[in-house]
Amino acid sequence: MGKLLVVGSMAFDTVRTPFGEATEVLGGSATYFATAASFFTSVDLIAVVGEDFPEHHLDFLRSRGIDLTGLERRSGKTFRWRGEYTYQLNEAHTLETQLNVLETFRPTIPDQYRAPDMLFLGNIDPELQLEVLNHVHRPRVVACDTMNFWIDGKREALWRVLEQVDVLIINDGEARALGQDANLVKVAKDTLARGPKHLIIKRGEYGVLMFNEKRVFGAPAFPLEMVKDPTGAGDTFAGGFMGHLAATGDLSDANLRQATIFGSVMASFTVEAFSLDRLRTLTFHDIQNRFREFKRLTHFEDVS
Amino acid sequence: MGKLLVVGSMAFDTVRTPFGEATEVLGGSATYFATAASFFTSVDLIAVVGEDFPEHHLDFLRSRGIDLTGLERRSGKTFRWRGEYTYQLNEAHTLETQLNVLETFRPTIPDQYRAPDMLFLGNIDPELQLEVLNHVHRPRVVACDTMNFWIDGKREALWRVLEQVDVLIINDGEARALGQDANLVKVAKDTLARGPKHLIIKRGEYGVLMFNEKRVFGAPAFPLEMVKDPTGAGDTFAGGFMGHLAATGDLSDANLRQATIFGSVMASFTVEAFSLDRLRTLTFHDIQNRFREFKRLTHFEDVS
Repeated sequence: MGKLLVVGSMAFDTVRTPFGEATEVLGGSATYFATAASFFTSVDLIAVVGEDFPEHHLDFLRSRGIDLTGLERRSGKTFRWRGEYTYQLNEAHTLETQLNVLETFRPTIPDQYRAPDMLFLGNIDPELQLEVLNHVHRPRVVACDTMNFWIDGKREALWRVLEQVDVLIINDGEARALGQDANLVKVAKDTLARGPKHLIIKRGEYGVLMFNEKRVFGAPAFPLEMVKDPTGAGDTFAGGFMGHLAATGDLSDANLRQATIFGSVMASFTVEAFSLDRLRTLTFHDIQNRFREFKRLTHFEDVS
Repeated sequence: MGKLLVVGSMAFDTVRTPFGEATEVLGGSATYFATAASFFTSVDLIAVVGEDFPEHHLDFLRSRGIDLTGLERRSGKTFRWRGEYTYQLNEAHTLETQLNVLETFRPTIPDQYRAPDMLFLGNIDPELQLEVLNHVHRPRVVACDTMNFWIDGKREALWRVLEQVDVLIINDGEARALGQDANLVKVAKDTLARGPKHLIIKRGEYGVLMFNEKRVFGAPAFPLEMVKDPTGAGDTFAGGFMGHLAATGDLSDANLRQATIFGSVMASFTVEAFSLDRLRTLTFHDIQNRFREFKRLTHFEDVS
């Protein structure tokens, strides 16, 4: 079982959806990722929080076996995000971002984190992602996320990251912006030619596509009767995906496909409640059961 | 191999997409459906065209083994549709509709059509769909399509059709309008409680969901590097789906799933060219090969 290192954000989220609202709840890419991955493997976390970050949130992460040696607590306030979703739940509308301590964050890597088996670079400034990459022994697998803000604003730095990345995990809008083309198959070809070995394109309620040079894998999202809050779906997808890879150490196409389904499973649970509340009561048994439901959802017999 | 009857429109389409345009080309729901289904089974067609409809289009349909006894040729002009697609290829923008001979169309059913094994009611006025239903011996399977225009304008007549329908095949926007809810799982529950045994929700480039009372089946669309013209994708989906059902006569869940994939295969070919041009050169061998590619696209191993 390989050690998995994540660098990303920790946040207070204030979210409104058609089904309710939540104020200053636990959020952030590193938080969601680490919590999801913790069902599969042990996770080391690098992030920053402010003085206002309550101990009980850290206790929760510790209870999931997440190593917080790399969590920096600084004077000032924790990063805050406020957003809303309409019935078109696939798209978040950001109402406010307060970077606070994230604004001057420079990840420092504890000695015991420097040889991770796998690394996930959450959605932060690509220059910080590069810095992390340059200060760890080359992991077996490096995966990374990003967002349109960096794709548009720091394209060159981002490509310097992507050249060193094995798996790029982004949503369809980001993929189109990165590839500067509407067609995802073309975007995948171009992107894979420039660095990443695997491109995973998340499509929210529509599922996921995973491209490599030879193959494509596609899966629908799990059909849910109630999606309460889509926040964190992408990061918990990545957490389930990388968690399964780190737990198995198997980089075969068959196992990458299973990892994609485990990622989809984790995202499908996350959106059932606000914040990461659904993950607080989840068991690995629940995860395996939903994996099997995914198999029943998608299975059909080949033609002879 | 069961006889399959389709009633629907025949049209001249004028279409602009980011990849080209086509003027007054062969189109219409019955045309697309029958051509796609003709790869699987023999098809009887009920539709109307005007005096301006050229013989070579009919020759093409006859060459596909489609029975045109039920095709009415009336004085006046053929139905015309003009529309365009942006890079967001999932949504057609209608620029002009000339109903012409379709405006006063009342389907008449030749005697030899009156005992079809399966029936597809293409997207026409639900009162006409009812009339067809009332004038044939109850087929083993009745499937039907509709559109927002009828969902909004003739809701009651439409529900009278749906109460007699086995398979409702509509897109996600139509499903949400019919069920008056944003959540497709809820829409499916409500719809299935009121009539259809199976609800197939087409999601364009995102694939398809098939619901029945007990199960859901989901499949992504086939990822294509070039989508030239999405027109007819929905009708050729229905044609492949019903064609396979009629050819096999097997209504098991496993076979309905295969039919859904055959439908997806036919749609994926259709969008590769304008009008139904791609279907003109297609072979059943091509269809089976793409079915196998669909299997490779979606397959993953279950957890033990």
